[in-house]
Amino acid sequence: MIKVSIAGATGYTGLELVQFLIRRPDIEFISLTSEQHKGKCLSQVFPSLKGWVQHELVPLGSQLPDCDVLFLALPHTASMAHVERLSGIAKKVVDLSADFRLSDPQVYEKWYETPHQNPKLLEGAVYGLPELHRERIKSANLVANPGCYPTSVILGLAPLMAVNWADLDSIIADSKSGVSGAGRKESMGSQFCEVDGGFSAYNLTRHRHTPEIEQELTKLAGEKIQITFSPHLIPMTRGILSTLYINFNQAVSEDNLRSTYLDYYKDEPFVRVLDRGKYANTHYVAHSNLCDIGVEFDSRTNRAVITTAIDNLIKGASGQAIQNMNLMMGLDEKTGLDFPGTFP
Amino acid sequence: MIKVSIAGATGYTGLELVQFLIRRPDIEFISLTSEQHKGKCLSQVFPSLKGWVQHELVPLGSQLPDCDVLFLALPHTASMAHVERLSGIAKKVVDLSADFRLSDPQVYEKWYETPHQNPKLLEGAVYGLPELHRERIKSANLVANPGCYPTSVILGLAPLMAVNWADLDSIIADSKSGVSGAGRKESMGSQFCEVDGGFSAYNLTRHRHTPEIEQELTKLAGEKIQITFSPHLIPMTRGILSTLYINFNQAVSEDNLRSTYLDYYKDEPFVRVLDRGKYANTHYVAHSNLCDIGVEFDSRTNRAVITTAIDNLIKGASGQAIQNMNLMMGLDEKTGLDFPGTFP
Amino acid sequence: MIKVSIAGATGYTGLELVQFLIRRPDIEFISLTSEQHKGKCLSQVFPSLKGWVQHELVPLGSQLPDCDVLFLALPHTASMAHVERLSGIAKKVVDLSADFRLSDPQVYEKWYETPHQNPKLLEGAVYGLPELHRERIKSANLVANPGCYPTSVILGLAPLMAVNWADLDSIIADSKSGVSGAGRKESMGSQFCEVDGGFSAYNLTRHRHTPEIEQELTKLAGEKIQITFSPHLIPMTRGILSTLYINFNQAVSEDNLRSTYLDYYKDEPFVRVLDRGKYANTHYVAHSNLCDIGVEFDSRTNRAVITTAIDNLIKGASGQAIQNMNLMMGLDEKTGLDFPGTFP
Amino acid sequence: MIKVSIAGATGYTGLELVQFLIRRPDIEFISLTSEQHKGKCLSQVFPSLKGWVQHELVPLGSQLPDCDVLFLALPHTASMAHVERLSGIAKKVVDLSADFRLSDPQVYEKWYETPHQNPKLLEGAVYGLPELHRERIKSANLVANPGCYPTSVILGLAPLMAVNWADLDSIIADSKSGVSGAGRKESMGSQFCEVDGGFSAYNLTRHRHTPEIEQELTKLAGEKIQITFSPHLIPMTRGILSTLYINFNQAVSEDNLRSTYLDYYKDEPFVRVLDRGKYANTHYVAHSNLCDIGVEFDSRTNRAVITTAIDNLIKGASGQAIQNMNLMMGLDEKTGLDFPGTFP
Repeated sequence: MIKVSIAGATGYTGLELVQFLIRRPDIEFISLTSEQHKGKCLSQVFPSLKGWVQHELVPLGSQLPDCDVLFLALPHTASMAHVERLSGIAKKVVDLSADFRLSDPQVYEKWYETPHQNPKLLEGAVYGLPELHRERIKSANLVANPGCYPTSVILGLAPLMAVNWADLDSIIADSKSGVSGAGRKESMGSQFCEVDGGFSAYNLTRHRHTPEIEQELTKLAGEKIQITFSPHLIPMTRGILSTLYINFNQAVSEDNLRSTYLDYYKDEPFVRVLDRGKYANTHYVAHSNLCDIGVEFDSRTNRAVITTAIDNLIKGASGQAIQNMNLMMGLDEKTGLDFPGTFP
Repeated sequence: MIKVSIAGATGYTGLELVQFLIRRPDIEFISLTSEQHKGKCLSQVFPSLKGWVQHELVPLGSQLPDCDVLFLALPHTASMAHVERLSGIAKKVVDLSADFRLSDPQVYEKWYETPHQNPKLLEGAVYGLPELHRERIKSANLVANPGCYPTSVILGLAPLMAVNWADLDSIIADSKSGVSGAGRKESMGSQFCEVDGGFSAYNLTRHRHTPEIEQELTKLAGEKIQITFSPHLIPMTRGILSTLYINFNQAVSEDNLRSTYLDYYKDEPFVRVLDRGKYANTHYVAHSNLCDIGVEFDSRTNRAVITTAIDNLIKGASGQAIQNMNLMMGLDEKTGLDFPGTFP
Repeated sequence: MIKVSIAGATGYTGLELVQFLIRRPDIEFISLTSEQHKGKCLSQVFPSLKGWVQHELVPLGSQLPDCDVLFLALPHTASMAHVERLSGIAKKVVDLSADFRLSDPQVYEKWYETPHQNPKLLEGAVYGLPELHRERIKSANLVANPGCYPTSVILGLAPLMAVNWADLDSIIADSKSGVSGAGRKESMGSQFCEVDGGFSAYNLTRHRHTPEIEQELTKLAGEKIQITFSPHLIPMTRGILSTLYINFNQAVSEDNLRSTYLDYYKDEPFVRVLDRGKYANTHYVAHSNLCDIGVEFDSRTNRAVITTAIDNLIKGASGQAIQNMNLMMGLDEKTGLDFPGTFP
Repeated sequence: MIKVSIAGATGYTGLELVQFLIRRPDIEFISLTSEQHKGKCLSQVFPSLKGWVQHELVPLGSQLPDCDVLFLALPHTASMAHVERLSGIAKKVVDLSADFRLSDPQVYEKWYETPHQNPKLLEGAVYGLPELHRERIKSANLVANPGCYPTSVILGLAPLMAVNWADLDSIIADSKSGVSGAGRKESMGSQFCEVDGGFSAYNLTRHRHTPEIEQELTKLAGEKIQITFSPHLIPMTRGILSTLYINFNQAVSEDNLRSTYLDYYKDEPFVRVLDRGKYANTHYVAHSNLCDIGVEFDSRTNRAVITTAIDNLIKGASGQAIQNMNLMMGLDEKTGLDFPGTFP
């Protein structure tokens, strides 16, 4: 029995962790925290859980009992404020915030506009994208779970970072996310009537997921990568679609391009490279830990057009966090995640 | 290993059966049929299944191998045309169509405007609402899986059929369904732009689920029940909410009313009677086999107002079919269904 | 040139007033008020208006210049707190809040849980449903614009209040509203992810629009009417559909029933009684001041089932307010409102 | 009184023409055609029009009376098959199909996979984007109304075609459209349940609007332009957002970039260049003829990121067609179009 605690259980990623782990016979919940709802039962916050979860929500600052795995589903800056104390009670920590994703604390400070509070712990943190860092995750004590956009962008571009036809200065990531990516909080911009029937970009050229993407692509390419990253809001709840552009220095056949992807991901349980003429669609990965990748080559302009689709709350957050937990605990990586999307 | 075949695997209920059963280690798919898509793989029809289902779709008329359980997810009239032949290859049959729900073939003919083709098999068919007919389902060979609307209405009214305060002539069922209830077929009325942003009633006073509801309520009440049933279309994919009205001959406290429901459903794994002041919401049962029931009493008019919520594709169709299969095969009824809804 | 001021211009009903009146050459805006956004231009709050409205938003408490018509688009209780002072600057006042709709201040106090602050002004207020009170509206100085639900319910039942076949104790109004009915404010219950894909009832048996409906039906019937009123939330922005039930003491043909409606509304420019077999649909009245009425008779249960559809922000609020303004100013009632719905 | 006929009145663009023109006192409808619905009244097809349009739909091949302006809202290839005959009955023709947009018939044949049937008429056709070709439109007899995507892309890039900082080989247009862009026809891909909650790309690298965009940009730039164009489907009814990328050969301040746009469009009634930090949003132009343009410069990568938003059925189709009609008939271009978007 794996003893699991979740700090920040009343956000959408906390809830998604509960929804996945509740189905597993090998998991026992120890503590579920919430500041706003402390004292209530989680099923009072989320009536969908009535009859399944009886735990009383406790504040993060209370004396939490020991556990095997602690998930931190807290806002950024809150994670780094609490992680030192909390890592004392947990053998393994998976942090779903941004606080331990950027290995350079100065980059963190520049983009998050606050100094990093725990550069020492940062050194030991592993970026939790299993397709890139599986072995290091297995032995890590603190895993920084990737952002939703970065997961979709990095998986879509990783196979091209090592080929020599690609112009690595030309990368553009045009990403589109469902509204749940904004988290569960009251805001005018996420009110139903403000979102329904509208589509727009936001935070163009300055979204905080940019350095995270660049850090991982830079590692893969072995040279400094800078990209243009454009997030957009889709009037729907779940899913991210990223459309990725990269110029090629020479013509490549679409089949060769697809082979590169098929080879790169041939052993990956959660990445599907789509057949010729198929496009990634968030609908087909919803409620699953899968990432679909569509591969196109525009021979008129010598430009690859890659589309990736994930469920932002699962492969983009809680599913990947569980995948990381599985690796950290020596389990089969697919445990509790081994199913396709739910449609429609 | 239970050998399962699905006739009509490319509709939404067929797909939902696959999505649930694919997760079970005790289930093996034998045949998946489709007329329209025969020869293709199911994952070509539903790309969400890529990598999980390799079965080639075969036509219903082909020589199907034997199986333990056959699900008929066919349009009405198609089921009764094929069931005799098909029941030869299957130990147990769960029919998701309307063809074997009405025990009186004349009632069938009146509402479906075609004579019943197999009155003999009809005699042995059991109406598959486990909360009402659990014991008979266990030993049935042919179970008629209830309609989505009837499931939501009958479960909401059953506890009141035996009390003596209720005026059984006063029942009104105002039901609202997501669009997936119309099935997976091209129709102008289900086109996105025709549905999105609109809400309306349809088939008022003449919907075919009316006699099915009345049949079961009549059995429970021991007297002939006639109701007004009003279906509506919600611009969303999944879920049915029924708002049920019944006059009382005397004032009853809301707590007493709720107790009646709590008692009636105290041992039911998939029915949740909500707490005071809580309303059934399709969002909280989505992707689960649960039925939530909210209980209100309007003391100004001595009228009970009951709300029920189900996922129309699950408790209203495929989940309930699996619940029936579990019962027919001597398994724990909750097998593969034992989890709450997925939110958001 | 009619000089118009709007108190509360940054809610959805205030915005809708602006959107309609901006197209009229005979209207000039004098003051637009907002507490939250004072000092800003309205187009900073609603970017859709960029280039069309330059007015700076002023606080309600500031010295507002005189005008011909003042629309109060304020929350209830705020209207009655300000109306006395404000009626000094305006020849005519249309109040879109609930404060002057209930002619009995004790009924107001019971349902709104606060004493009425201005019973004297209440005496002179006219309930602004032109189909019922056209002549009194023409000469009124203060019109209480009806609630969105009451408009849809009263128009649907009015023709039956004077016939002798109807059982007036049996009225049930099952109403469904788009989310914009909740107004423009941050709330968890109106967040996109909480609403999208879900459908539920709320405030069953206790919604504040109940006494308003009963007051008007009582006037029409000449006897005290009590109804059961059940509001529901639809995951869409605009529109109300009400499904109305009333028992008949005798069988009536559907054609006779429809004739009753056609006669009653034969001179009404904004009410359409639909043809046999047609159902009211919010989609077909969206963005218009129309109310569609569908008429069905359930001959199995001797019960009429009436459906009505309006755009809650227009015939349910701002369009009707403009219709009232037109009447109060001696204009053609249809001025600026004389067009059908926008589809899709 | 301008006599107007519409060939193809029962598609969404035909309906939108009717909805706009019906409000104008200077317009009289002569003929409305439909093959599928001939003999019916338009309001039987679109119940929203009940009471406003009594015209019987006639087949395109019937003897149509003379008119001043004929709108062809037909599928491509149907327009060029009928235009010669129909131009005999109309002084002016606005064709909303793609048949007369590409001035080179060989380009047409390559992308539409059928030879052009009327190259002679093609020579005299004017591409109906008033912001580019206003004077030629005024005197044209046949105007080819632009595609929805091309309108959004060309307006977003036009101001940069003449500056010398831009790398014209680097253009990428990532466009997203509501479902109404697919027209009003039964198709599985546009069924509500297939679209709702999903987002995907389609026709990557091969969409037929590509050559239309390139033709107009090439004219503006004075050199051959080739772009990568990526269309996507948004789960909503109306609106197109295009995100446009172009590399700069030097750093430019965002204010300078915005000035270029403000200058270029300073006299345009339907183009709004947004303020610093504002993003184009389809919600703010819905139901209007406006095009909003947001301007960003990514100084990290020396790349402009331009966002444009239109209502695809209006500025992307029928509104622009009316704008063209106004110009062709010598009217004020803004007649019947002079209002902002409707929100929410």
